[in-house]
Amino acid sequence: MSEGKPIECTAAVAYAPNKPLTIEKIIVEAPKTDEIRVKILKSALCHTDAFTLSGEDNEWPASDFKPVILGHEAAGIIESVGPEVTDLAVGDHVILLYTAECGECKFCLDDRTNLCIKVRSTQGKGVMPDGTTRFKTLKGEPIYHFMGCSTFSDYTVVSKHSAVKIDKDFDLEKAALLGCGVATGFGAAGYKGIGAAKKQNQITEGSSVAVFGLGAVGCSVLEGARAAGAKKIIAVDTNDKKEEWARSFGATDFVNPTKLPEGEDIVSKLVSMSDDGFGIDFTYDCTGNVNVMNNALMASARGTGISTVIGVAPAGAQISVRPFYLIVGRTWTGIAFGNIKGKSEMNKLIEASNQGVLSLEKYITHKREFKEINTAFEDLHSGDCLRTVFDY
Amino acid sequence: MSEGKPIECTAAVAYAPNKPLTIEKIIVEAPKTDEIRVKILKSALCHTDAFTLSGEDNEWPASDFKPVILGHEAAGIIESVGPEVTDLAVGDHVILLYTAECGECKFCLDDRTNLCIKVRSTQGKGVMPDGTTRFKTLKGEPIYHFMGCSTFSDYTVVSKHSAVKIDKDFDLEKAALLGCGVATGFGAAGYKGIGAAKKQNQITEGSSVAVFGLGAVGCSVLEGARAAGAKKIIAVDTNDKKEEWARSFGATDFVNPTKLPEGEDIVSKLVSMSDDGFGIDFTYDCTGNVNVMNNALMASARGTGISTVIGVAPAGAQISVRPFYLIVGRTWTGIAFGNIKGKSEMNKLIEASNQGVLSLEKYITHKREFKEINTAFEDLHSGDCLRTVFDY
Ligand SMILES: [Zn+2]
Ligand SMILES: [Zn+2]
Ligand SMILES: [Zn+2]
Ligand SMILES: [Zn+2]
Repeated sequence: MSEGKPIECTAAVAYAPNKPLTIEKIIVEAPKTDEIRVKILKSALCHTDAFTLSGEDNEWPASDFKPVILGHEAAGIIESVGPEVTDLAVGDHVILLYTAECGECKFCLDDRTNLCIKVRSTQGKGVMPDGTTRFKTLKGEPIYHFMGCSTFSDYTVVSKHSAVKIDKDFDLEKAALLGCGVATGFGAAGYKGIGAAKKQNQITEGSSVAVFGLGAVGCSVLEGARAAGAKKIIAVDTNDKKEEWARSFGATDFVNPTKLPEGEDIVSKLVSMSDDGFGIDFTYDCTGNVNVMNNALMASARGTGISTVIGVAPAGAQISVRPFYLIVGRTWTGIAFGNIKGKSEMNKLIEASNQGVLSLEKYITHKREFKEINTAFEDLHSGDCLRTVFDY
Repeated sequence: MSEGKPIECTAAVAYAPNKPLTIEKIIVEAPKTDEIRVKILKSALCHTDAFTLSGEDNEWPASDFKPVILGHEAAGIIESVGPEVTDLAVGDHVILLYTAECGECKFCLDDRTNLCIKVRSTQGKGVMPDGTTRFKTLKGEPIYHFMGCSTFSDYTVVSKHSAVKIDKDFDLEKAALLGCGVATGFGAAGYKGIGAAKKQNQITEGSSVAVFGLGAVGCSVLEGARAAGAKKIIAVDTNDKKEEWARSFGATDFVNPTKLPEGEDIVSKLVSMSDDGFGIDFTYDCTGNVNVMNNALMASARGTGISTVIGVAPAGAQISVRPFYLIVGRTWTGIAFGNIKGKSEMNKLIEASNQGVLSLEKYITHKREFKEINTAFEDLHSGDCLRTVFDY
């Protein structure tokens, strides 16, 4: 039994910005107080991991880049629990949650938001709630945590608030995908009252939808729109290769904004595609590009349109439009993790998967051994990858 | 009887930008088809009238300034009706509506918005729906309409969709105020399910509110917040003289952003005034200044805050913030005429007035004879004026 003792295992450590991760043996300490130690079985690579590795993340800047174990989209089995943990147990299957749910803070008690603050401040600093790390090199140097998860390791330690127990029958490979991108997009669509629906932003039957950016997040918004019964679902991407994908996830139309006739821009194109010429009911930015965010707002419907920012913009970038677009009734909002409360709503996502409404398997375009993780960063930018899932 | 015949009466005509209005005799033709002719008894001056007179209004630019009768906040009595009018009758007391309600268009049929399109395109061009004007000079030159109302005339002609019948017992001086500013602010607060509440943006009991800009619109948001039972109601204005007013309309706090201690800005000040330090539940811009709009968004609460743009910005000005403010759950929206559907919701505003929840009489800081209208433009910029009401 390893319970209560440090574990020596393999991890992929980011020691410097824009360098390959170092695959090496590290020490993972035992979970303290209300922490759990999880054996990771499946993990996927997300753009946020690559973003932080690039050194452009304000919270982990190149100028002060400390050794860190990335990864936040994963599922595994609890190996041991801290002495104060009563609601999770050894052997439980879990999905890790970079957006925790403590159930007690102001935000957890508010039905409209998922932004639990219980572990937020220490999570941003790469440490556990007591201010220390559970990872160290074999030489004893600290290695930092990432997004409260750090899944690029055979074992990780997280707060009990940062993992949700799931049914043991549910495939862990699919489960891993629910830890970030797909939950983000599907939640944004507001399936069956979850996610964004809690903010009165649920795609409605017969409505029109435009989704900018067709990675895993964008494609899962498309699936959510189809599940909601949207009538027109327009996928927007600069890469024509995404069209076939987009249609398989529910898009009824595809527009490449770089290939419009002269004099037509993406905003006027989308507005002209709406039934009544007043714009699109629900628009989503899944690119992180502020110009796209502006366009998504402007293409939304006069009077009632809602535009949702999902993509994360580079440091310093600003959205900017004439306020007239708001005065005439548009709403601009945004959400993180699809406004999904990770513990209390995960079962709805699993149900959607079991019912075939959310086709998790289709997002897994690449599979690799964990030790091939550096190659997966290349997959991510290849243009034909939604998710690479690692087997540990 | 004047029915069916042109009327010669007094009007105040704007012939050129930034010049005094010309008080003169004009001809007001009989109402056609579904139009009504209204004898104006009380009218108020609003910033929008002054804005258009300045020549900075894109729809009525200085470079192409045609003679126009301004004014859009008024009440009167129907003098005659066109042959197709059946729901309004001679002698009815009415409030004019620059935001029409036809009851039939896509927007009228949608409970979430008040942006009726029935007369919108011609209204913007200063003509009646048939493309012509009902005003002319004694020499026979056309004079244009304004905002579908043109109340700075003894008589005006408007679409039947641009007037709402009210109880004859209701004071017409108070009624005039419900034609624009006060309805805009009170509607924005979402009193008893009307106005902004139809967009799920209703000030809730026990919440915190910040209102930027304390003209008639801002003060009526304050009153709406008090009526809704908001706990903390912060009035923000650069003019300290507004504090007493603000408190009389319901403000619990007053902040002058130009007098903060060094190193403190209005955003951090307001956030620090919220109970939990996460920001203000509902914020409103009533200034038309885009920097203020940005601040109002940033001061709204993480996770759940809603910031509403009410003020109209100068041509070309843009709102601009880091999209992070939206990603963490804030909502940025805007409304025109308080999202009030002018015909179907006006009775609720009158009810609020009759119950003393909306103190219309307090907004009337100045009273003048109609012929003194040019002086009223000076009142507007004096800093101690909410509304000047004219007696005809
Ligand atoms: Zn919480
Ligand atoms: Zn992610
Ligand atoms: Zn006005
Ligand atoms: Zn209408």
